Amino acid sequence: MSNSAPLLITTGEPAGIGPEITLMLAANGQLNNTVAIGDTQLLKQRASLLGLHLDVIEAAPGSGVTSSPGHLVVWPAALREPALPGVLNPANAGYVLETLQIAVDACQQGHAAAMVTAPLHKGVIIEGGFAGFTGHTEWLRDACGVDEVVMLLATDQALHAQSSRWQGNSDLRVALVTTHLPLRDVADAVTYDKITRISRLLATDLKNQFGIAAPRIAVCGLNPHAGEDGHLGREELDVIIPALKALRAEGLDVQGPLPADTLFTPRHLAGVDAVLAMYHDQGLAVLKYAGFGQAANITLGLPLVRTSVDHGTALSLAGRGTADPNSLGVALALAKRLSAQRANGLNAL
Amino acid sequence: MSNSAPLLITTGEPAGIGPEITLMLAANGQLNNTVAIGDTQLLKQRASLLGLHLDVIEAAPGSGVTSSPGHLVVWPAALREPALPGVLNPANAGYVLETLQIAVDACQQGHAAAMVTAPLHKGVIIEGGFAGFTGHTEWLRDACGVDEVVMLLATDQALHAQSSRWQGNSDLRVALVTTHLPLRDVADAVTYDKITRISRLLATDLKNQFGIAAPRIAVCGLNPHAGEDGHLGREELDVIIPALKALRAEGLDVQGPLPADTLFTPRHLAGVDAVLAMYHDQGLAVLKYAGFGQAANITLGLPLVRTSVDHGTALSLAGRGTADPNSLGVALALAKRLSAQRANGLNAL
Repeated sequence: MSNSAPLLITTGEPAGIGPEITLMLAANGQLNNTVAIGDTQLLKQRASLLGLHLDVIEAAPGSGVTSSPGHLVVWPAALREPALPGVLNPANAGYVLETLQIAVDACQQGHAAAMVTAPLHKGVIIEGGFAGFTGHTEWLRDACGVDEVVMLLATDQALHAQSSRWQGNSDLRVALVTTHLPLRDVADAVTYDKITRISRLLATDLKNQFGIAAPRIAVCGLNPHAGEDGHLGREELDVIIPALKALRAEGLDVQGPLPADTLFTPRHLAGVDAVLAMYHDQGLAVLKYAGFGQAANITLGLPLVRTSVDHGTALSLAGRGTADPNSLGVALALAKRLSAQRANGLNAL
Repeated sequence: MSNSAPLLITTGEPAGIGPEITLMLAANGQLNNTVAIGDTQLLKQRASLLGLHLDVIEAAPGSGVTSSPGHLVVWPAALREPALPGVLNPANAGYVLETLQIAVDACQQGHAAAMVTAPLHKGVIIEGGFAGFTGHTEWLRDACGVDEVVMLLATDQALHAQSSRWQGNSDLRVALVTTHLPLRDVADAVTYDKITRISRLLATDLKNQFGIAAPRIAVCGLNPHAGEDGHLGREELDVIIPALKALRAEGLDVQGPLPADTLFTPRHLAGVDAVLAMYHDQGLAVLKYAGFGQAANITLGLPLVRTSVDHGTALSLAGRGTADPNSLGVALALAKRLSAQRANGLNAL
């Protein structure tokens, strides 16, 4: 992979805000060495609808042509049916997945440095005939043929910090043991194997992608007050503590399990590189509060660099030009940093 | 109840930091019109151990004598056995509960304006023969003979805010539908009845104790992304949405259910008086992050004003003088404000 290989943005659900937040960043001159993947006509129409002065130009993967001020370069995929802002159409489900496949292939063939994904709509993909679809992250895991991936969210401040560790501002990184599960299924999904696999991947990619030599990870308990010695649930005693003990024996710097409601305070966050939460709302409510809505999502454990916005398709805003492209900008900046770090690491081997 | 009735501090677990954080506030001159409840000798010994220059003086409930700079006034309860810092003793469980009973009686007889509780240790109370004990909040509910109470936490910023509503800083109030339950029991405990009862109490006491004429409450979903239309759990569709619909029909201003990870961002918090979270870590991780460890706990639904610190007994710190009395100070300031507001409200009836 060349350091000058472009960053890719998959423009996501065509009825959502993905195409226009990509165009907005292009119009702001923020897409140097970047290529969008999507339907060329769609992007031209949205640019016109929003009154953006921007040339949308097609190029082929591997051609070396990338966007520049005033120009958005697109690797094309063709919509199955025309897309209107705000109107979901299951006929275009295959189109959305095709943009992802183009990005994965390009990353794996060395034609791209990283991929950044704009939001897709899970429901319409399922409705479009992909019944087993559960989200970007799981699709990428399967497309890359790996067994396990980790969802990590990072605030903007963390991306720009000089030091990797939490220093008392609002910079924060939070990884999840379980992701998009009904709450009543979470306790059974938090297993010894899951915790150890996720922790190892997290530690490995904090090194490989973030360049943190000896990452320190603070781990939440599952239950309130981390189970209070078994008074409020036994999963800490039966599952989490044994898993962390095994990880420490392997040399990982894991602390906890700590009560989630006190972990996210200065005394416990000081010196920590990432927090591992047991489930979605335990970790992400505080992460997004800290990020003031400007966080990015990173998938660890893949053989490529992938970041994502932290928001959905926002169908009701689509086509209006009022969507906030900031999270996409954060995800892009992070992808750039992580791919450079990864390239350095690979060169050093 | 007279406006000049004192505030009470129950000094909590005698082996923990409760006695000394009370003494530290007294030594700082922060306990005007306040009385501590606990063992007089214990408080004298801890003051001496910490090198605090402070006279510890006994008085009787209703005597009108309160603390002043250099003097801590105590309504006495007698330890069953001497207490050493850091060493739990089940023999003193009855003593801890006696301090609570003295406070409840005084509030109900008009001898006190409010009670503020230092931390107790649940395990040692149970071990001491009170098998059904599950915490301060539930004990107070039963002692006051009410059916339901609400646990609300507020950050320090909220206490000092000019306006009641979230304004883009870190001031925040979070109430909980369920409190100290193992995570695997939460989904079944979130019922239509529970949500409606808790919401009504919350709205009532935001009026009566906080003086908010028409409180606006933002309600979290139970599942990630608030269930995503049933794709990630059905409790929103089957339980929460119907409950909120009924509450709106009664005139309550309840919004949601909203995904917990996006609710705690400026766009959704703007104009909100309190967030109602479905369970402990969903709401309190972000609350305590926002409060930077300086939050207070308020029990709503009681016929008296009760606030509490947001931390535990910190046995390992006890007797060292290094504990932080700040949360107790916040709880005391809040109790003062709430009891004044309540007295105004009662006078206006």
